[in-house]
Amino acid sequence: MKRLIGVFMAVCFSIALFAENGHNLWLRNKSNNPVNIVSKKSSATLAIAKEELQQGWLGEANSTVTLLVKQDKTIKGDGFKLTTNNIQANTDLGILNGVYELLRRQQTGEAIQDAVINPSYELRLLNHWDNLDGSIERGYAGLSIFWRKGDDAFKVTETDKQLWKEYARANASIGINGSVLNNVNASPDMLKKETLERVKAIAEILRPYGIKTYLSIKFSSPAMIGGLKTSDPLDPEVITWWKNKVKEIYSIIPDFGGFLVKANSEGQPGPQDFGRTHADGANMLADAFKPFGGIVMWRAFVYSPSTEDRAKQAYNEFMPLDGQFRDNVIIQVKNGPVDFQPREPFSPLFGAMKKTSVMPELQITQEYLGHSTHLVFLSTMWEEFLKSETYQEGSGSTVARCTDGSIFPQKHTAIAGVSNIGLDTNWCGHHFAQSNWYAFGRLAWNDQLTSKQIADEWIKLTFNQTSSDNSKQPLFSPDWIVNFLNPVEEIMLESREAAVNYMMPLGLHHIFAGDHHYGPGPWYAPKGLRSDWTPPYYHKADSDGLGFDRSPTGSNAVSQYHEPLSSQLADPKTCPEIYLLWFHHLSWDYKMQNGKTLWDEICYRYDTGVQQVRDYQKEWDKAEPYVDSQRFGEVQSKLREQCKNAQIWKDACLLYFQQFSKRPIPYDIERPVNVLDELIKKDMKRH
Amino acid sequence: MKRLIGVFMAVCFSIALFAENGHNLWLRNKSNNPVNIVSKKSSATLAIAKEELQQGWLGEANSTVTLLVKQDKTIKGDGFKLTTNNIQANTDLGILNGVYELLRRQQTGEAIQDAVINPSYELRLLNHWDNLDGSIERGYAGLSIFWRKGDDAFKVTETDKQLWKEYARANASIGINGSVLNNVNASPDMLKKETLERVKAIAEILRPYGIKTYLSIKFSSPAMIGGLKTSDPLDPEVITWWKNKVKEIYSIIPDFGGFLVKANSEGQPGPQDFGRTHADGANMLADAFKPFGGIVMWRAFVYSPSTEDRAKQAYNEFMPLDGQFRDNVIIQVKNGPVDFQPREPFSPLFGAMKKTSVMPELQITQEYLGHSTHLVFLSTMWEEFLKSETYQEGSGSTVARCTDGSIFPQKHTAIAGVSNIGLDTNWCGHHFAQSNWYAFGRLAWNDQLTSKQIADEWIKLTFNQTSSDNSKQPLFSPDWIVNFLNPVEEIMLESREAAVNYMMPLGLHHIFAGDHHYGPGPWYAPKGLRSDWTPPYYHKADSDGLGFDRSPTGSNAVSQYHEPLSSQLADPKTCPEIYLLWFHHLSWDYKMQNGKTLWDEICYRYDTGVQQVRDYQKEWDKAEPYVDSQRFGEVQSKLREQCKNAQIWKDACLLYFQQFSKRPIPYDIERPVNVLDELIKKDMKRH
Repeated sequence: MKRLIGVFMAVCFSIALFAENGHNLWLRNKSNNPVNIVSKKSSATLAIAKEELQQGWLGEANSTVTLLVKQDKTIKGDGFKLTTNNIQANTDLGILNGVYELLRRQQTGEAIQDAVINPSYELRLLNHWDNLDGSIERGYAGLSIFWRKGDDAFKVTETDKQLWKEYARANASIGINGSVLNNVNASPDMLKKETLERVKAIAEILRPYGIKTYLSIKFSSPAMIGGLKTSDPLDPEVITWWKNKVKEIYSIIPDFGGFLVKANSEGQPGPQDFGRTHADGANMLADAFKPFGGIVMWRAFVYSPSTEDRAKQAYNEFMPLDGQFRDNVIIQVKNGPVDFQPREPFSPLFGAMKKTSVMPELQITQEYLGHSTHLVFLSTMWEEFLKSETYQEGSGSTVARCTDGSIFPQKHTAIAGVSNIGLDTNWCGHHFAQSNWYAFGRLAWNDQLTSKQIADEWIKLTFNQTSSDNSKQPLFSPDWIVNFLNPVEEIMLESREAAVNYMMPLGLHHIFAGDHHYGPGPWYAPKGLRSDWTPPYYHKADSDGLGFDRSPTGSNAVSQYHEPLSSQLADPKTCPEIYLLWFHHLSWDYKMQNGKTLWDEICYRYDTGVQQVRDYQKEWDKAEPYVDSQRFGEVQSKLREQCKNAQIWKDACLLYFQQFSKRPIPYDIERPVNVLDELIKKDMKRH
Repeated sequence: MKRLIGVFMAVCFSIALFAENGHNLWLRNKSNNPVNIVSKKSSATLAIAKEELQQGWLGEANSTVTLLVKQDKTIKGDGFKLTTNNIQANTDLGILNGVYELLRRQQTGEAIQDAVINPSYELRLLNHWDNLDGSIERGYAGLSIFWRKGDDAFKVTETDKQLWKEYARANASIGINGSVLNNVNASPDMLKKETLERVKAIAEILRPYGIKTYLSIKFSSPAMIGGLKTSDPLDPEVITWWKNKVKEIYSIIPDFGGFLVKANSEGQPGPQDFGRTHADGANMLADAFKPFGGIVMWRAFVYSPSTEDRAKQAYNEFMPLDGQFRDNVIIQVKNGPVDFQPREPFSPLFGAMKKTSVMPELQITQEYLGHSTHLVFLSTMWEEFLKSETYQEGSGSTVARCTDGSIFPQKHTAIAGVSNIGLDTNWCGHHFAQSNWYAFGRLAWNDQLTSKQIADEWIKLTFNQTSSDNSKQPLFSPDWIVNFLNPVEEIMLESREAAVNYMMPLGLHHIFAGDHHYGPGPWYAPKGLRSDWTPPYYHKADSDGLGFDRSPTGSNAVSQYHEPLSSQLADPKTCPEIYLLWFHHLSWDYKMQNGKTLWDEICYRYDTGVQQVRDYQKEWDKAEPYVDSQRFGEVQSKLREQCKNAQIWKDACLLYFQQFSKRPIPYDIERPVNVLDELIKKDMKRH
């Protein structure tokens, strides 16, 4: 048994850099070479654009920059035309977007080439699952920045306004142009007068930054707060109530964006309560918005405890409605067919609904990916999703192209991300969780970006060391690039795969402990709980093997995908191994492509995940000389916890599945350190 | 970052062997070739000897074995003369000892050569720290087998008697010939009539197995239960009281062994309370025992919160008394000068007290070595201690030879082990903790045995697979030897060094959390607590370095050792590195013999400890086909916990010491997964 492998370490230790608390996000640059700005027009938005240029210009000193609002057909929406010293756009917001692009390129050292730069999606929204009492569903970074309980719940303070302004600026800097201010599990009180007054105050801060406000609504509001006997969407009184409510909102917030609706989903009321369809409900609301240019985002996250595979239900329910929605309705579909798992195949609705505006809903908050404790860069997951080939209109019909208007003539294109923002000083709980907010904005603007580019930008903006001293330029020295940028980028780019490895490799999904969706709970199946809320429903471990059979011999969910993908997924030999157990129930001895048995491969995957996190710890510790002490220490502590968690995941899942596989964990793998019975007992005590 | 190193594992899994619960200890053999026994004499002890032979004979079927009680000057005490088919001894107990030796050799396959085999120590005792309420101080294997609270506290049941008999047989089988039945922190009630009646019942069961009973007493008993005004050992009434009490005991238990006394130690009363010396106290009791042949074992475990180094105090207090004790007093000295730490140098009293009977006190229960959770084979620690060179009478004056009568003409030679036995089915809590009971007995019998031989015997006796089937011989197949015996033996022999590595390498000591002596607590120093009960007293970490300076520039504890050892220990360059920080406070940059700095070496040692336990997990898992399922699973679970604990030890100590060293943990070492503040908070919440 070998020990004491020593290497003499000559690395300099404990260089105490200035402390940073992370509140400035990726907007830490304070350099300001003098710059002359020429702009004929003035507006609140343009004033911000000028201020940003003056505070952040890193080009040649005393350059002249022209901001020109002028119609140009090559420029779409709030896109812009960029040259070294000129920004042209159709709108003031286009100018602001161009300014942020220009400054980012200066700060990251990216070349500025003459180009028209248009957004991939018209609407780029954050969804805040914030409740009126200030709590946030699946929020792991403190309480809501918008809502609070208590006597001053509706008082708008200077602190509120300052924070909302910082929030708006951060969003604007990455191209986000809309915010849904409250939880999709909405309170009817959201539509009450005093609440709307606060929405108005928020909207006023967000408006100059080009960010529209939206609200989630409860479908039964007419009965609950309107005094009506029903909320039936075809009832004339209900229709009138909503028309008036929308009108009232626009009288308060003239540029209001629209509604987001979770209906007939997980216990929420909806049109089906009255024998109506999702189309009936969505269209009724859309009609109320029509005069004001507002939109309705109607979520397709629906499933019920039937005998039908949960993964198939949204498709089954919405496909028949394709073509029946108003043109200001957008169907908002989660990336995968189940629920924001560490890895899912794309929802088969993407590309399949050809006569309906369909928008992806991504989850920035890490509900199923380690909350604000695990370092998981989600960009690679979203990139994998956006670049997934649907084959709906032949090769090249990626999810991105099916949703961004490249293929289908959608009236509206949009994308939403469920926010990870709260009152924590660093906004997101984990310093690296900021990168997910950043990545969502960047991908929403340009769905062809690579995660590598996004990570590269974000690291340079977030961790460059010269922004607080007096030099005018961030300096990316070869030393910094080799010893900080490259290893940290490698960690980020690999981190989601690591999480998949130590949580749910090979297509396993939803084997979380009940409720909290943080730790493992493959055993979790309390008596009487609906089976589709229990992990055994998803992993189907038995003495024969593991996995959910969604092939034609099983639930045939593969049939919801377009050929040739459908056939490819249907056969375990052609199904990508990353989705293997999503689509197939396979023998423990099933031979993987690398020659290992399924059981052994699972063991190696889990162990690999643990080793990956250990590697991140080492790399981060080595990076200490390049990071300010506060952020270094906070990330270091989180990585320690993540490593412990990864070990618990590995142990829990392997020991649980081993009860069925009755095979040894390969002996070259580090053994479990946790005891299954104790993990289960601890988990069950929580419930 | 490398992943997925796979080796195809062809090892057979899940061979379910019959389950064993460990209750049969190393006495699992049930084979019984027919044997003829010739013995002229009969006694209860000889009856047991015959029964054991008849039930366990593995020699040639129908052999004749002669048991002969006949005086022989070459045979000492309860030793014996052994040939293949004959056992001769001076006493019946000698015959029984010979029978167990013969059977063990048959079972382990050790050759039986004609030889006189004498014990190293006359008295080979277990000390039970059992309280009258059934609890056991530092017991980790359930409640007392002797005492209990409740209505039937003094009722002697058949179950009691059966268990005591099994206990007696197990002890006899390894040569233990005495048991102190209660805690050294003794209750005065121990000497009350009803308690003594229960002692009598126990003694009757133990007697045929050659095991004498002893009791711990409270020195203030005359005042506490005798109605006297004082317990002054020179007070005539006190002297009379003890004489009468001893007489009373012998009237109940005619072969009573004597008293064990903890006096003026950790708050216990003693002669110093009355201005008398330890000699005054011990001699007074010894005089009371003289007529009955009983002895007094007087503990030298004394220290007080003075400015003097705790490690020096026992020597300072007892050395001046050398020669003042009666010849039926034995001074019982813990192996190390502090308190049963994972590693200590030997107490300087050994060999130094030349005119006094001195006996070593070892601790079988793992108070400071992971309780009944960690697999730590203590034999190597005791072997290291017994073979320590004192130089008191020139080279070869090992602790063993200084205490077993080889060098000094002690009236009595003795050795004691603090028992790890409780009501747990497997007696010791951890199946491998049985090996420590076994090893203590074997070393007490023969202080020249190697740990390797003891481990070899114990594994063969405890895990051979044929003892429960119908074959007549345990079979040690090459497969079993290579894949079970050798790796398990390697684990055992290395295990104490592993514990030292992950707990307190390089001479660190007593950095446990307060009270429980299980987990790490290098930080533990509550305000107002006497400093010699806090870890910082022992590790003395500061920005300069680490360790307790006991060199001539410090407390000069080295002066208590005999030359040339004293000078050797005084110089860090010649001090064995295993004791380095016990004797020296050294700079974090101190250069170790391997060229590493002290700080780096500490890091590597802690990490090595963790890796060693991980290796044990692997080896044990591989051994699954060779072990019955119950013991396999129970040991597997304990190893998991041990591994987690080792990681906590490493993280806690490295992160705590790093606050002073301000140096990085070498980057090729796996990073901590625990956060120091949280470990401290968790520890302090307990207090």
